[in-house]
Amino acid sequence: MYKTKAYSAASSTSPLSSTQIVRRDPTEHDVQIEILFCGICHSDIHSVRNEWSSIMSTVYPIVPGHEIVGRVTKVGSAVTKYKLGDLAGVGCLVDSDGTCPHCKTGLEQFCSNLTLTFNSPDKHLGGVTYGGYSDSIVVDERFVLHIPTNLDLAGTAPLLCAGITTYSPLRHWGVTKGKKVGVVGLGGLGHMGVKFARAFGAHVVVFTTSPNKKEDALRLGADEVVVSHNTDEMQKHAGSFDFILDTVSAKHDINAYLNLLRLDGNITLVGAPEKPLDVSAFSLIMGRRSLSGSNIGGIAETQEMLDFCGEHNITADVEIIPIQKVNEAYERLLKSDVKYRFSIDMASLKSE
Amino acid sequence: MYKTKAYSAASSTSPLSSTQIVRRDPTEHDVQIEILFCGICHSDIHSVRNEWSSIMSTVYPIVPGHEIVGRVTKVGSAVTKYKLGDLAGVGCLVDSDGTCPHCKTGLEQFCSNLTLTFNSPDKHLGGVTYGGYSDSIVVDERFVLHIPTNLDLAGTAPLLCAGITTYSPLRHWGVTKGKKVGVVGLGGLGHMGVKFARAFGAHVVVFTTSPNKKEDALRLGADEVVVSHNTDEMQKHAGSFDFILDTVSAKHDINAYLNLLRLDGNITLVGAPEKPLDVSAFSLIMGRRSLSGSNIGGIAETQEMLDFCGEHNITADVEIIPIQKVNEAYERLLKSDVKYRFSIDMASLKSE
Repeated sequence: MYKTKAYSAASSTSPLSSTQIVRRDPTEHDVQIEILFCGICHSDIHSVRNEWSSIMSTVYPIVPGHEIVGRVTKVGSAVTKYKLGDLAGVGCLVDSDGTCPHCKTGLEQFCSNLTLTFNSPDKHLGGVTYGGYSDSIVVDERFVLHIPTNLDLAGTAPLLCAGITTYSPLRHWGVTKGKKVGVVGLGGLGHMGVKFARAFGAHVVVFTTSPNKKEDALRLGADEVVVSHNTDEMQKHAGSFDFILDTVSAKHDINAYLNLLRLDGNITLVGAPEKPLDVSAFSLIMGRRSLSGSNIGGIAETQEMLDFCGEHNITADVEIIPIQKVNEAYERLLKSDVKYRFSIDMASLKSE
Repeated sequence: MYKTKAYSAASSTSPLSSTQIVRRDPTEHDVQIEILFCGICHSDIHSVRNEWSSIMSTVYPIVPGHEIVGRVTKVGSAVTKYKLGDLAGVGCLVDSDGTCPHCKTGLEQFCSNLTLTFNSPDKHLGGVTYGGYSDSIVVDERFVLHIPTNLDLAGTAPLLCAGITTYSPLRHWGVTKGKKVGVVGLGGLGHMGVKFARAFGAHVVVFTTSPNKKEDALRLGADEVVVSHNTDEMQKHAGSFDFILDTVSAKHDINAYLNLLRLDGNITLVGAPEKPLDVSAFSLIMGRRSLSGSNIGGIAETQEMLDFCGEHNITADVEIIPIQKVNEAYERLLKSDVKYRFSIDMASLKSE
């Protein structure tokens, strides 16, 4: 075991502050990574503030962070995929049983025995896992990702969650050239959805409540931008979408979007509104439409996404902050005051 | 044009009563059918009482009925598929534009220019179309179905709507041997869903609020019956269903069923609750589940379903009534007091 610097919260109402945590020494299959950048995901805030207690209560202290890129500083004796000095990434998952049907088909995110990067029982050290707001992390190589060397690292960190969360459903629902695709909400998830849908060749329409995001949406790759409270603008697109990626995590009128789908069209939710959405059966019945959800992606698909990003030079648009600004960043994120993801420069933690 | 006997309602609060209506003489592509049986569908009641006015207002007088079987009494000069004396069926559709992409792929139910069997603009005679609570009907042969000669005709009539409404989504979502399939609600639609899912080789579980329907559900082909307000019984099936057919037309807790789906499982709504359903995003996100709707089926698939029923000797369980009992039947249907579909013996209309 060794000590490493981190930022943690002591309770659901405490700010994050500097601390030291213990990591295991790498076992034979482990990779030790010096963390260079860690993205801030909305779910970090939900967990820190114990807002998802109905699903998983937060154990304090919590060290959040699951959008991790860094450099390999040590490898276990049986590690074959990584060597000292390699770039490496870690996303939301650090372990799974490896034996269930989901794991065997590369869908580790649906394993019922998975270990999340933070706030999951830690089978090595007891207690819970600690995430990426930290100097260093140790992860089984099966859950470590290769990072393309041509990408900006600060913008690469958010790919590990925001990237795969949007890439996976777009692939799953067959978004390709010739498809008309909507992206609802232009935040951390939405702006990645736009970039991927565009890169896959789709005709991309962004739905936003903020008319002032129009220019930025076009810059990010949208072909059209619709201000969603403009009923006439919405109506023009009725029955025309193959797929809509809904990234909004507040309650909203999902029927307005269901009605924009063509026959067999699908809306996939990747935001998770706390309150249930009101779904009209008629919106689904007329046009055999479907409403789905999607949750990150498996390890193989995450690697595929990173490789795709390397080939197409895709990263998140980030605002780089020192770890000392993380509490301020949380408040700004809650006001959508970031374009489009915060990425923590972990060099800032060394001075603590 | 010729006159024929029918039952119609004069307003949303009037009972159905005996009347005479006018039908067109068969044009060259038309088939004239003497109606022998007509099923009573819940949507007959919705239309008669103008309860779906937000989607389509009822024009009075209305002659409902879209589960029609009868015998061909005349054919137009260009008709090739039917001859005098043939058994024939008519479902919810009597025309569509035939040129749109939906029509060209056999999905006439999604044509934006379709003509419903009743309460749709009648392009031949003006006014609106009149349905199957009638002695006779004239329909373009493209929308007439062949009826297998081995089937009981009273029980065959409901196949034209309840049958195809349940057959189509079970086929669309790939229900086959080895799949675990749920059917929510054991009424006109549900009991057909059970018969088809069983015939397709699935393991069938019926969900019902009425413990006293258990025996009947097993008789109809269910492998298991779950009383849906029993949380423990429900929990035993968590994460295990490939597909659930939801036939309930009243508001209900859809999340309780979403949580029973396995990875990539689907619930399809064929009932149409007036009020929106509360859908938890988490129920969809955990397991990449989807919630869909389905609306009858195309003409080719309706024929396929009828042929399948002929081969497997599948008909609806019906209570045969004379047309004079139709108003009473409506009240009983609203109380689910029928096993499982009313079928009107149209011979009774001849005495009016």
